[in-house]
Amino acid sequence: MNNARHITLPAGFTAAGVTCGIKTSGNKDMAIIASDTEASTAIVTTRNQIVGAPITWCRTILPRGYGKTRAMVINSGVSNVCTGAQGLKNAKIMAEETAKRIGAEPQQIIVASTGVIGHQLPMGKVKLGIAAAAGALGRRRDSDVTQAIMTTDTMQKSAVVFTTIGRKKVTIAGIAKGSGMIAPSMATMISVITTDAAITPAALKKALTAKVNRSFNAVTVDSDTSTSDIVAVMASGRAGNANITAASKDYRKFETALGEVCNELARAIATDGEGATKLIKINVQGAKSDKDAEIAAKSVANSPLFKCAVHGCDPNWGRIAMALGKSQAKVEADSLSIRIGETLIFHRGRPTKFNAKKVSKYLEASEVEVSCDLKLGKGNFTALTCDLSREYITINADYHT
Amino acid sequence: MNNARHITLPAGFTAAGVTCGIKTSGNKDMAIIASDTEASTAIVTTRNQIVGAPITWCRTILPRGYGKTRAMVINSGVSNVCTGAQGLKNAKIMAEETAKRIGAEPQQIIVASTGVIGHQLPMGKVKLGIAAAAGALGRRRDSDVTQAIMTTDTMQKSAVVFTTIGRKKVTIAGIAKGSGMIAPSMATMISVITTDAAITPAALKKALTAKVNRSFNAVTVDSDTSTSDIVAVMASGRAGNANITAASKDYRKFETALGEVCNELARAIATDGEGATKLIKINVQGAKSDKDAEIAAKSVANSPLFKCAVHGCDPNWGRIAMALGKSQAKVEADSLSIRIGETLIFHRGRPTKFNAKKVSKYLEASEVEVSCDLKLGKGNFTALTCDLSREYITINADYHT
Repeated sequence: MNNARHITLPAGFTAAGVTCGIKTSGNKDMAIIASDTEASTAIVTTRNQIVGAPITWCRTILPRGYGKTRAMVINSGVSNVCTGAQGLKNAKIMAEETAKRIGAEPQQIIVASTGVIGHQLPMGKVKLGIAAAAGALGRRRDSDVTQAIMTTDTMQKSAVVFTTIGRKKVTIAGIAKGSGMIAPSMATMISVITTDAAITPAALKKALTAKVNRSFNAVTVDSDTSTSDIVAVMASGRAGNANITAASKDYRKFETALGEVCNELARAIATDGEGATKLIKINVQGAKSDKDAEIAAKSVANSPLFKCAVHGCDPNWGRIAMALGKSQAKVEADSLSIRIGETLIFHRGRPTKFNAKKVSKYLEASEVEVSCDLKLGKGNFTALTCDLSREYITINADYHT
Repeated sequence: MNNARHITLPAGFTAAGVTCGIKTSGNKDMAIIASDTEASTAIVTTRNQIVGAPITWCRTILPRGYGKTRAMVINSGVSNVCTGAQGLKNAKIMAEETAKRIGAEPQQIIVASTGVIGHQLPMGKVKLGIAAAAGALGRRRDSDVTQAIMTTDTMQKSAVVFTTIGRKKVTIAGIAKGSGMIAPSMATMISVITTDAAITPAALKKALTAKVNRSFNAVTVDSDTSTSDIVAVMASGRAGNANITAASKDYRKFETALGEVCNELARAIATDGEGATKLIKINVQGAKSDKDAEIAAKSVANSPLFKCAVHGCDPNWGRIAMALGKSQAKVEADSLSIRIGETLIFHRGRPTKFNAKKVSKYLEASEVEVSCDLKLGKGNFTALTCDLSREYITINADYHT
């Protein structure tokens, strides 16, 4: 994967990732993803009430969450959160420096930062980094970009989907960072998606919003939500298809393809949860509503006792029933059924006589599935999480403020 | 403490704890706390939608949560949850057997069970255990009772408070079990409180409800909520004070003393959180309402990232601000201040230049305090939790279903 192209595969984009010294490790820490021309753009940002300066900047330049931009600049190492007026000024300077180097306006530059919070960005290094990244923009070093946006991630995360819209080949590619502090609202998660599809900003925003809820927002690693999350999608229009609007017959096809990219990136984030040894999918069906299904699924996904049980390969249906029951979603023990993989372990309020050794063996896999049928309606939702290991504690007890 | 009296200190109560073989360890697993005569009684039970058969029994005999009872019978080892009609029958049999042995009616017996769920109680052993405990009732072996209700607890938990009501000496004593699956609604927590005060059942219920919210319900070890929680208080009236009603001038004094017992037991539960090395108090003040303060305090208390940081003695104000911001409570970064112990570490949206080494040293203590002032109103709440350690994972990954 290290040599594979992804973020620059859609026509019209260049990218670069460089080291400018924000991270003391010497790892890459500054990235630019640029569109040759104005790109239709949509963003979705964190729901945390406390947000970083870059989020404030993005909400200022894209007040409705969509519009036209030219590039996204991302640094890692320092997140520019809780940094006051100086922090806001620095986020704006990042946009200005990037704009100057690529020949655009500051209002056309999306800014994102990730890393420790409460520290001011070292602006001397940041400016040199932006100049270096702008100078290195190209189509051959996409893995430099994924590296430059990583913090505690243990692997690079990217996805590419090809589709055909109006006889034109369309490519949608995405990268993401995030492994801890991931929760219902896309915590400490940054994702950039590029596509050469021609689509209006409003239609792009509609598609992104629709897909984020069942992908990025379905992931919860530790129920914690960061102050800096952003998913941005830029569409260059270079595929040459007829411009997609929300009313086009092609809209649904584009939305579906975008959803595939979002799903793949979301899965990668859950798999890379801090200290995780396995990916856990929690399907809830038969809820009174989709919202109830989401609440119930996330209650299981966020239960430390459940996540420890899966880590220990213990088919602990009691902790699943407990987590469903404690949620605000409507649950009735007597209608509830629970499966681990294919095995029915709990049926209508009672455990079944299942083969515990067999189910325990199933739980040793790197990807496992728990399905809960509430039998109260038609609502469904799938949440993604990972197991809770000693390594999670080690990573998060020793991380330095 | 092992030889100290507590639960039988208030006049009119006897108790016993015995081994009857429900636990394979051979540890004590059956307890009875009995009142010589009918006692005013109040209970508060779990908010989980899935409840054990003993909870159903208690709600049947005390539909309004208060009334008159004669005894409480508690077993550990098997919790009698998700056990269907047979489970309900078994809970009733426990009441019947206890009633028969002490000369009471089954409807006068509170039943509680804790331990693994989904298994039927071994009723032969249970009946012999009840007979043995009833035969051993006395005032000299209170620690047998605390032992008999323990599961993963590492220490016995009891509290005694003395007060004077209408010139009469009144004693209130309590015991509790619970260390894991503790959360907003008193998860896997059983507590019995005895008092010799004369008080009406309705007044007793009012006092218990008022105090449970700021004590037992302020504790969260892992955000998980059990199916079996119950707090019961029995008042023998033997102190000889004028019968307290909710309108009595003595009511407030009794409620305050009851609150002290609840607080001490709640603190003991948080301190004994699975794998915990320290007790964490999270004070939130200046919230728009008390409810908002509770939501904000519990959001911090339930954050695995925050709990790991405290475990690692890291003065990580960022994780505290993040946890406040992600909650449903109204929070504004620019008005927010955070203290760890006495040290102001975050003020109006920015970290202060605090001495990180000094604060880290403070966090090494066995009891630490975090105070957050939202400066938005007058609401306040204190949540209790513990740090998150590797040992928590070990306990909960290896616990067998």
